[in-house]
Amino acid sequence: MNSITMKLNADHLIQQALAEDITSEDITTNAVMPDACPGEVELICKQDGIICGLDVFMRVFSLLDENTEFDMKVKDGDKVTKGQLMGVIKGDIRVLLSGERTALNYLQRMSGIATYTRSIADLLSGSKTRLLDTRKTTPNNRIFEKYAVTVGGGYNHRYNLSDGVLLKDNHIGAAGSVRKAVEMARDYAPFVRKIEVETENLDMVREAVEAGADIIMLDNMTPEQMKEAVKIIDGRAKTECSGNVTKENIDRLINIGVDYISSGALTHSAPIMDISLKNLHRI
Amino acid sequence: MNSITMKLNADHLIQQALAEDITSEDITTNAVMPDACPGEVELICKQDGIICGLDVFMRVFSLLDENTEFDMKVKDGDKVTKGQLMGVIKGDIRVLLSGERTALNYLQRMSGIATYTRSIADLLSGSKTRLLDTRKTTPNNRIFEKYAVTVGGGYNHRYNLSDGVLLKDNHIGAAGSVRKAVEMARDYAPFVRKIEVETENLDMVREAVEAGADIIMLDNMTPEQMKEAVKIIDGRAKTECSGNVTKENIDRLINIGVDYISSGALTHSAPIMDISLKNLHRI
Amino acid sequence: MNSITMKLNADHLIQQALAEDITSEDITTNAVMPDACPGEVELICKQDGIICGLDVFMRVFSLLDENTEFDMKVKDGDKVTKGQLMGVIKGDIRVLLSGERTALNYLQRMSGIATYTRSIADLLSGSKTRLLDTRKTTPNNRIFEKYAVTVGGGYNHRYNLSDGVLLKDNHIGAAGSVRKAVEMARDYAPFVRKIEVETENLDMVREAVEAGADIIMLDNMTPEQMKEAVKIIDGRAKTECSGNVTKENIDRLINIGVDYISSGALTHSAPIMDISLKNLHRI
Amino acid sequence: MNSITMKLNADHLIQQALAEDITSEDITTNAVMPDACPGEVELICKQDGIICGLDVFMRVFSLLDENTEFDMKVKDGDKVTKGQLMGVIKGDIRVLLSGERTALNYLQRMSGIATYTRSIADLLSGSKTRLLDTRKTTPNNRIFEKYAVTVGGGYNHRYNLSDGVLLKDNHIGAAGSVRKAVEMARDYAPFVRKIEVETENLDMVREAVEAGADIIMLDNMTPEQMKEAVKIIDGRAKTECSGNVTKENIDRLINIGVDYISSGALTHSAPIMDISLKNLHRI
Amino acid sequence: MNSITMKLNADHLIQQALAEDITSEDITTNAVMPDACPGEVELICKQDGIICGLDVFMRVFSLLDENTEFDMKVKDGDKVTKGQLMGVIKGDIRVLLSGERTALNYLQRMSGIATYTRSIADLLSGSKTRLLDTRKTTPNNRIFEKYAVTVGGGYNHRYNLSDGVLLKDNHIGAAGSVRKAVEMARDYAPFVRKIEVETENLDMVREAVEAGADIIMLDNMTPEQMKEAVKIIDGRAKTECSGNVTKENIDRLINIGVDYISSGALTHSAPIMDISLKNLHRI
Amino acid sequence: MNSITMKLNADHLIQQALAEDITSEDITTNAVMPDACPGEVELICKQDGIICGLDVFMRVFSLLDENTEFDMKVKDGDKVTKGQLMGVIKGDIRVLLSGERTALNYLQRMSGIATYTRSIADLLSGSKTRLLDTRKTTPNNRIFEKYAVTVGGGYNHRYNLSDGVLLKDNHIGAAGSVRKAVEMARDYAPFVRKIEVETENLDMVREAVEAGADIIMLDNMTPEQMKEAVKIIDGRAKTECSGNVTKENIDRLINIGVDYISSGALTHSAPIMDISLKNLHRI
Repeated sequence: MNSITMKLNADHLIQQALAEDITSEDITTNAVMPDACPGEVELICKQDGIICGLDVFMRVFSLLDENTEFDMKVKDGDKVTKGQLMGVIKGDIRVLLSGERTALNYLQRMSGIATYTRSIADLLSGSKTRLLDTRKTTPNNRIFEKYAVTVGGGYNHRYNLSDGVLLKDNHIGAAGSVRKAVEMARDYAPFVRKIEVETENLDMVREAVEAGADIIMLDNMTPEQMKEAVKIIDGRAKTECSGNVTKENIDRLINIGVDYISSGALTHSAPIMDISLKNLHRI
Repeated sequence: MNSITMKLNADHLIQQALAEDITSEDITTNAVMPDACPGEVELICKQDGIICGLDVFMRVFSLLDENTEFDMKVKDGDKVTKGQLMGVIKGDIRVLLSGERTALNYLQRMSGIATYTRSIADLLSGSKTRLLDTRKTTPNNRIFEKYAVTVGGGYNHRYNLSDGVLLKDNHIGAAGSVRKAVEMARDYAPFVRKIEVETENLDMVREAVEAGADIIMLDNMTPEQMKEAVKIIDGRAKTECSGNVTKENIDRLINIGVDYISSGALTHSAPIMDISLKNLHRI
Repeated sequence: MNSITMKLNADHLIQQALAEDITSEDITTNAVMPDACPGEVELICKQDGIICGLDVFMRVFSLLDENTEFDMKVKDGDKVTKGQLMGVIKGDIRVLLSGERTALNYLQRMSGIATYTRSIADLLSGSKTRLLDTRKTTPNNRIFEKYAVTVGGGYNHRYNLSDGVLLKDNHIGAAGSVRKAVEMARDYAPFVRKIEVETENLDMVREAVEAGADIIMLDNMTPEQMKEAVKIIDGRAKTECSGNVTKENIDRLINIGVDYISSGALTHSAPIMDISLKNLHRI
Repeated sequence: MNSITMKLNADHLIQQALAEDITSEDITTNAVMPDACPGEVELICKQDGIICGLDVFMRVFSLLDENTEFDMKVKDGDKVTKGQLMGVIKGDIRVLLSGERTALNYLQRMSGIATYTRSIADLLSGSKTRLLDTRKTTPNNRIFEKYAVTVGGGYNHRYNLSDGVLLKDNHIGAAGSVRKAVEMARDYAPFVRKIEVETENLDMVREAVEAGADIIMLDNMTPEQMKEAVKIIDGRAKTECSGNVTKENIDRLINIGVDYISSGALTHSAPIMDISLKNLHRI
Repeated sequence: MNSITMKLNADHLIQQALAEDITSEDITTNAVMPDACPGEVELICKQDGIICGLDVFMRVFSLLDENTEFDMKVKDGDKVTKGQLMGVIKGDIRVLLSGERTALNYLQRMSGIATYTRSIADLLSGSKTRLLDTRKTTPNNRIFEKYAVTVGGGYNHRYNLSDGVLLKDNHIGAAGSVRKAVEMARDYAPFVRKIEVETENLDMVREAVEAGADIIMLDNMTPEQMKEAVKIIDGRAKTECSGNVTKENIDRLINIGVDYISSGALTHSAPIMDISLKNLHRI
Repeated sequence: MNSITMKLNADHLIQQALAEDITSEDITTNAVMPDACPGEVELICKQDGIICGLDVFMRVFSLLDENTEFDMKVKDGDKVTKGQLMGVIKGDIRVLLSGERTALNYLQRMSGIATYTRSIADLLSGSKTRLLDTRKTTPNNRIFEKYAVTVGGGYNHRYNLSDGVLLKDNHIGAAGSVRKAVEMARDYAPFVRKIEVETENLDMVREAVEAGADIIMLDNMTPEQMKEAVKIIDGRAKTECSGNVTKENIDRLINIGVDYISSGALTHSAPIMDISLKNLHRI
């Protein structure tokens, strides 16, 4: 994770997560360890998968004590296997204990997303279709989850409501027509934004492509409709297909020829990857 | 969710989640709807489950416009079924559109946790054993996730490192022995805290119960060992069993006779419940 | 200004500006007015121009006292003239006095930008070329200043470094070539972003258009070079011309045929518009 | 700028300005430069003037990366000329690119104010009259702008509503009379505050001086009235003259003999000074 | 307490104090009262004194629930006696219980300061000497404590390091001499600041008065020295005497003729006034 | 004070306290010391007592300048005597001057609490009874004040409303009976919380002990009643006695045999300990 992004966009969230876990003090650790005591602990993988979030994991400890040291043997995106030693963390044992849960909560979740994303992205390999995330992220965790999607081989859709235009049925209804909606968006939004239109049938697809949409989302269509839509669009706009896509049901979408498939499941339903800190000892 | 908790401990997180999704403005909505326009939208369940987080869902819209009105037909903890109309939200359509994703992100996740918790809690019904959550929550979402566990019929373990004492192997190692660790904790921690000790074998169980631990956690023991441990403890301390408990593997633990079973999966791996806003229209 | 944008993206800045001006209390007002006292004051224009920022102006007072009332006779974007009564504000006189300076600081600055922008945009009327702002805004005032540009008839370029791709010479150098830079950006950035390339000569223009740039910035070229560039590009990308554009020097650029002219002066050097609150009296 | 002031009163504003420009990440830089890469860039003056804000400029980069190094060849208050090399910044090129705009936005604005202030202050040199700023600063930029005024040879009026007493017509009206207003202020305000009274005619001047005002502001009087006022006051209070003072119209005020002339234009209408970062290259 | 001061300078502190006391929820109240329940409670004085902080007390409850109602029978500055009913608060009983401690912590402390201040101020009544507070306030409580001093009949010295100049021995040492220090301060500080000099002997007093100090502090001098100092100063500056002043030892200072006596004890050592909420019942 | 607690739970309060004292700049120091200047100052005790808060004291200066150095000759909990040199602080004299008041405000207050607590705790030495604090702390200073109590030899009661259950009369009234209240709390609260019941007479004591309360508070009972209550409870619950306990009136409670005596006076009415910084000089 880029260090500037970390400082500007992640640090305050990590700090807040630590304060969520320690509102007055780590009472257990402080009871038995009144003084600093150097030690080290191993980061062990307990499940096969794609590791992701190591910078965030390390940052948790560094925010507690800038002298904490890390000897990482893997990097984000690496395949890791059950039992693998992924790194060693050295520092004040109190820091290692007090930061453990928060650090692992980030690392397990991000690795879970990367692992799940990779498993779907692999199904698309060979096709021209790319896998996209959505805005269905956990509140106050988007910066971490969208990053995890890219580490897993997926691509990011717009970051939020401010940096992408996506005209849905209600927007189109408010504008009066697809054409009018595209025009209003083109006039209002910064010109660096592409205009995406969500379509539910082939008529809307035709309208959207004629209105000059940059991207056309095919929402909840059958594979046949989507194939037809791709023909109609014929390269005049990028195509995205969406609608409850999971690892289990993506196969029917692979050969349709859309540019992108988006899946909320990547961030809202990926199970975590099991990881733990083991063998803490004094040094 | 209690209204004081909402104001003091949740509002700033919800506000922050909204700002994560709207960094300058909702450019699509603002492009096509320059002015306020009254409308209503339906909250529809798309999957069977336990609904949870309605106050948070409503709060998202109220924080954007205090005049938004809600006619909710269900309440937290209710069983809901696919297709069910759960409520109607009335207000400025721009507010309904701009808040939709954030509101659903909370509601889906909280309902997912409540649903998954209920499914496990139901397996324990009839036994004396209660289901507990852990600190394996999503960063900056603990207040929501722990609440969802209770709505699903689970119980909360300690909230964080400050409000409960849990002596793990490393704490015991630092203190020198189980007895010493319990004494140090009893002396240091506010006397309103119960002292919990994590044990890995029957010798530690004996030591813990003799040291006067209030709660003894049986970590990663076999069912047989746990039964033996319960006998040894014989009511002198509460018992908690832990270790990668999921819906799939909990059956082996049901008749052991422990007071509590804790499961990180409740909060770290529950899939979301599918819910959507439908039929938005002007009024 | 949209009310959601106000709450999520402006309120905290306005609150902070008020706290910058009142660190303990408004000592003068509190000395002579120990109690609340209803009054009204007139908002008077002291210079011809385009009024902008009325919502922000009103919000300053509403944040101090939600019962403050406003009778505004103009709206953002209106031409106003010296001496014109633009509105009447009613409320506790202490609120009117304590909020006056902060409210006017916003209103004068935003109206200054709208007025200056309009004066340049008028010069472009009749041509197809649109006037753009830049990121040369006052720190912590971008949300207000970019809005003021649109009220003045200008258009917004990207909001910030996160929501638009603009490959400058250093980025191109790092990538190795224009083609490589465009490819890397296309691969890395969310696909809803358009890719803009800054070019300094006709060779770069050719490279950029061939690399598939969505927008080509012609930076510090002569009018002749720019005309040539527009020919080369021939509609295959949007064109933007930039480089110290002000009201005084824009005429040489009007007939070149570019799609956009961007001017940092709109936000960094527009003089304020003189506005004052007059005739405060009890009611 | 004093380092304590920077930490306590400026750092959070600079951090906020950076976050305004980077809400998720610098997508262009990160696309083409995945890894840190040492480089240096030159700070070049593109216009004659007074440089101001170098500490703030440097702080922007240091907040992004504390290892950034600076070799500054000028200091705040120095006259600089077009084309002059003012300094060299060394560090991770990604930091140099991501911080560039925010750093320059501060430096250009502060230098613009210092330059404009110096040009007016020079007109007053030789007279006893000092040039003052006002509270007409850009919201959330007062700490920077008031500092820039002093660097330009001006002096600061009160910082905000809390640290100075200025009785205007409405305050006097509320109190009942100038004498009563001064008494109330003297009784209420901390005794370390001087009491200033705004007067609009010679009768008010007489009342104010007799009431024991420490400072008397002569507001929108003619030069003749002001000369008469200075005579009446006769050293019993400090005198300040105010009212739309700019470089163009200050000459009529120079020989009146007031102690201070205040000008809102110093902070609300100074054009920026053109400065740029050039010749970025790897090292 | 002024409502603008409350919103801008106190609300965030009160909110923070509430969050200090409720980090997740009020677990006792929520356990036994799942739903809102209207009730009322009486505010009873348990000790004679000067009541102070009623607005802050009420604000605590209003921040938890804006519908809380108050029927206050006393106002800030009133003498109250043991057993007196000072007001009735009506609202959701859960709000009354959850806010009680924080509300009383403010009210007891502020009333304690007002009571102690009044007891000393009364000793000065009849003399021209006024009682001043200092900066020896409780961290993050200055806005409340300085207000309480005024309610008790004391006066405020400077609010903080930014709004008053006080040259102590170390400042004088750094400048080189009293005269030089006064000159430097006069040149640097906004001209609305008075210059105060701390003196420790009569020579310094003479130097300070000749240097044109506005206020001269007589620090840790004997009463005889102070009398002599007052003679030397002879009205050319205000005089302040300071040095561990308490109710017990102030009598020796009363007839010296200084303008002000400052006492840190007002805010750092006043005992609280005992106040409680009684007779909570449903309505 | 633990370094993790400092970073997560104290730093922002210290920073805020510094910003309370310096809203724009330390105008006196900056006037006479434009540049950094190395110096040192001595920390001198001016009164006998227990020193407490040295880490907080040092942190104030470190937050202003991380290069400040400390040579401390005492540690928290040490008895110190009038005139004793407790440490030497080296750093930029401007930092020493600007941070002095805030640093001492913390140190004096914390030492005052530790000193007062020790004086009462000493009275209990030899008995089994421990001295407890309460939630009657100064708003936004609880983390410091509760720590000071432990340094003085006292023990902490619950930290706040979230981490301990204390059923008072109103809670019991809402539940219907003591038994019902204890049941509801046991069901609702995390099982790691002990349940405390406040009792006012012996009948309530009997009910509470039978209901299985973990702790029974004897509130405002006579010593005789309390002795009887201790007999009734007979070790089945911990006992706490409370009610306006001070150093002056604690003797009547010493031999009653309760486990704990709680005293709000420890934090709300301890006078500060006089401490100062002396002999600042350049080095």
